[in-house]
Amino acid sequence: MNALIILAHGSRRKESNLEIKKLAEKVKTLAESDYSVVDYAYLEIAEPNLLYCIDKTVEKGMTEITVLPYFLNSGIHVERDIPAIIETATEKHPDCKFKVSSCIGMSEEMPAMILERAKL
Amino acid sequence: MNALIILAHGSRRKESNLEIKKLAEKVKTLAESDYSVVDYAYLEIAEPNLLYCIDKTVEKGMTEITVLPYFLNSGIHVERDIPAIIETATEKHPDCKFKVSSCIGMSEEMPAMILERAKL
Repeated sequence: MNALIILAHGSRRKESNLEIKKLAEKVKTLAESDYSVVDYAYLEIAEPNLLYCIDKTVEKGMTEITVLPYFLNSGIHVERDIPAIIETATEKHPDCKFKVSSCIGMSEEMPAMILERAKL
Repeated sequence: MNALIILAHGSRRKESNLEIKKLAEKVKTLAESDYSVVDYAYLEIAEPNLLYCIDKTVEKGMTEITVLPYFLNSGIHVERDIPAIIETATEKHPDCKFKVSSCIGMSEEMPAMILERAKL
């Protein structure tokens, strides 16, 4: 039973956080049977935070959790903060397998997406 | 003669800013004849800033400039700061036509890109 957690930075602006919630809903629809659970969390400022979201996901019986950093750059958050949280989560849930993908900005399709978006 | 400027937030981390430079190079290759100029700028912290980049682009003879906000959320930067800079640029270069696209996070293909990236 595997889960996907979309991890965004988190904003003081409610609408921005709501955009992440809506995005996760779209991903869930598109994922179909790929993941039993698709959820979202924020690294800072907003709630739910990642560790809380992981606890909740494990409680649902998930044994594999993929965290996708919804960040454009591989900065300190991606390279230091997220691995630190995953380390804590691994100690807390030793029977669950964790994977952190590279951040969304690393997508090879990004240049094409930029050109597409620039037309609109 | 039209140009595309990819506008990122800008980081204290040199490597993150370099990622934007490399991304712009990839977009330029992919764009082929769509844009005579593909360049990049930062909203804060790093240089070149947007207004400087626009000045330079106009000097190259560009008459249409599209600015693509390379942001995941439509926050204050996207909704207030960028339009304010474009207003200044429009006053400075009245013969140039400016367009600001919606931010990259609004792309309809984003949910699919998330699922793709999560696999890696």
